[in-house]
Amino acid sequence: MKIVHLAKKEASAKIMLPAFQDALRELGEVEVVEHGQDMTEQEVLSVLRRGDVILTDWMSQPLPVTLAADPGNVRYVCNLTGTIQGFIPPEIINAGIPVSNWGDATAIELAESSLTLLLAALKEIPARIRRVESGKWRDLNGLRQGHLHGLRLGLYGFGHSGKAFLNLVRPFQVDVHVYDPFVQELPDGVRRADDLDALFSDVHAVSIHAALTPETRGSVDAALLAKLPDGGIIVNTARGDIIDQGALFAELASGRLRAGLDVLADGDWLPPEHEARAWPNLLLTCHQLNMSTWPDPEAMHFMHGICLDNLRRFQNGEPIRFLFDSRRLALST
Amino acid sequence: MKIVHLAKKEASAKIMLPAFQDALRELGEVEVVEHGQDMTEQEVLSVLRRGDVILTDWMSQPLPVTLAADPGNVRYVCNLTGTIQGFIPPEIINAGIPVSNWGDATAIELAESSLTLLLAALKEIPARIRRVESGKWRDLNGLRQGHLHGLRLGLYGFGHSGKAFLNLVRPFQVDVHVYDPFVQELPDGVRRADDLDALFSDVHAVSIHAALTPETRGSVDAALLAKLPDGGIIVNTARGDIIDQGALFAELASGRLRAGLDVLADGDWLPPEHEARAWPNLLLTCHQLNMSTWPDPEAMHFMHGICLDNLRRFQNGEPIRFLFDSRRLALST
Repeated sequence: MKIVHLAKKEASAKIMLPAFQDALRELGEVEVVEHGQDMTEQEVLSVLRRGDVILTDWMSQPLPVTLAADPGNVRYVCNLTGTIQGFIPPEIINAGIPVSNWGDATAIELAESSLTLLLAALKEIPARIRRVESGKWRDLNGLRQGHLHGLRLGLYGFGHSGKAFLNLVRPFQVDVHVYDPFVQELPDGVRRADDLDALFSDVHAVSIHAALTPETRGSVDAALLAKLPDGGIIVNTARGDIIDQGALFAELASGRLRAGLDVLADGDWLPPEHEARAWPNLLLTCHQLNMSTWPDPEAMHFMHGICLDNLRRFQNGEPIRFLFDSRRLALST
Repeated sequence: MKIVHLAKKEASAKIMLPAFQDALRELGEVEVVEHGQDMTEQEVLSVLRRGDVILTDWMSQPLPVTLAADPGNVRYVCNLTGTIQGFIPPEIINAGIPVSNWGDATAIELAESSLTLLLAALKEIPARIRRVESGKWRDLNGLRQGHLHGLRLGLYGFGHSGKAFLNLVRPFQVDVHVYDPFVQELPDGVRRADDLDALFSDVHAVSIHAALTPETRGSVDAALLAKLPDGGIIVNTARGDIIDQGALFAELASGRLRAGLDVLADGDWLPPEHEARAWPNLLLTCHQLNMSTWPDPEAMHFMHGICLDNLRRFQNGEPIRFLFDSRRLALST
């Protein structure tokens, strides 16, 4: 089995880790080629067509559409990361070449991030850090500090990360409400909300675990946010554009709501001078909270395990996990 | 049943909540007397001796030692809170009057606090808040950000709060090591450390759940801290004096270790100008993290439930829970 990886510039040091490349070489011949963006399309095609498997990630050279009609040796495109938008054209999938991604690899990490943001917002960690630094000490004045135990908690979306999040909050004996129209069966002790109105009306805090689709884009709007109680909390580790960010920022600027946001609209970014950076009721983690640099910056992640498992499955003729089809492609972000 | 509460100054608004006083009145006659500190000892004794039960908390008028020899009607002292040092003399217990406290009421709250501090330290929330506010954005440079999933975690002490903490971290699939010489049996999947040296040598982070005793005072010293790896984390929601604070602060000032401390030495206090307030690797929460003001500042807490349950037990001649004896008195702080 020949495995080809073609990076746009340099191969990602965080993804193409030495330990991972060693593990790949135990499975087959590995060719890592860099600076694909400086090649002609013919050169790109010529590199890619050498592989039985093309390995991609978000730093990869986009696969030319013309690969679909003439894939050469290529029989599998294994994307290490999540989204394939912008570098794996749907024509590849439509041509019958299997394309997979990291599946639920990040679910556990995202769930940890969501719980961290929820606890920090609930216990007023951002406000307290600033008060302590400014010379104050014991001071609950104006802080809306609570226990997760017994809280009414809403989950918007109940896919991989929503389920992993539920698993983490179970021991807190929270009262969990879930809105997800695609999920037929909910676990014991979880209440179904029939729509977002019902979800936001019934809970103290909402954690977002939905995919970005035309239906979910901007779906958390001013009317929904107004249904949360004073001090209510929004946690988002999914996609920033699911929230009408202007509406949420208005609620945060007024001090009424609180939020922990790993993701934002506009490519997860805020200008350096944006006033929201100093709001004590907003915790911003810059779409980096699920990254790990400690204790071992070179340690493989869940996504590496999923990739290696899928390469073994491909090699053995077993079913590949987390394959894209047209429906997953439409839901994927 | 007559229930007497004698406050030193005013009765605590956070403890003697209206909803709690209503619940007390369903059990018996309730007399709340304030400004005990302005009374003579004879006046204090005369108020207290009227009660079948004396209800105390950390804002109570200290019980005179002379109450032990001549308790009047008093047959039970129900302390709403934890420590009784300074306001319930041991002579009362030695005279055979049952004295109880909140037992495990705060265990769940303390466990939540410990997990909040651990996740915030592990994910560099204090450093990130300051970076975002200063205009930076995506920047992992110098941050030692990790996942709790799979981490090696040490618990120093395995009483009520240690057990509740284990319950919360179980779903993270952490590798838990416990040091507690008083506990014979540990739950499945938990490793015993034979001494503190072994505990600190084997883990990435230590959470303290021990009582303050002559043996534990200052027990987390420079030699133990040196055994933690670079970036290692200390979480303390128990008692500040268990740690040699000078040794820990030296490790924090150098940037080698990280900590989340709800409690400190010297009465949980730092001077307003202390440099530690600005350290990005230290999260200080001023012995307030287990307090709740939201969503309902008037809501009863676990301690109120324990107190009401014990008053019903006393009334029905059933065994009172969380009674002090000489051993508990020695261990209690």
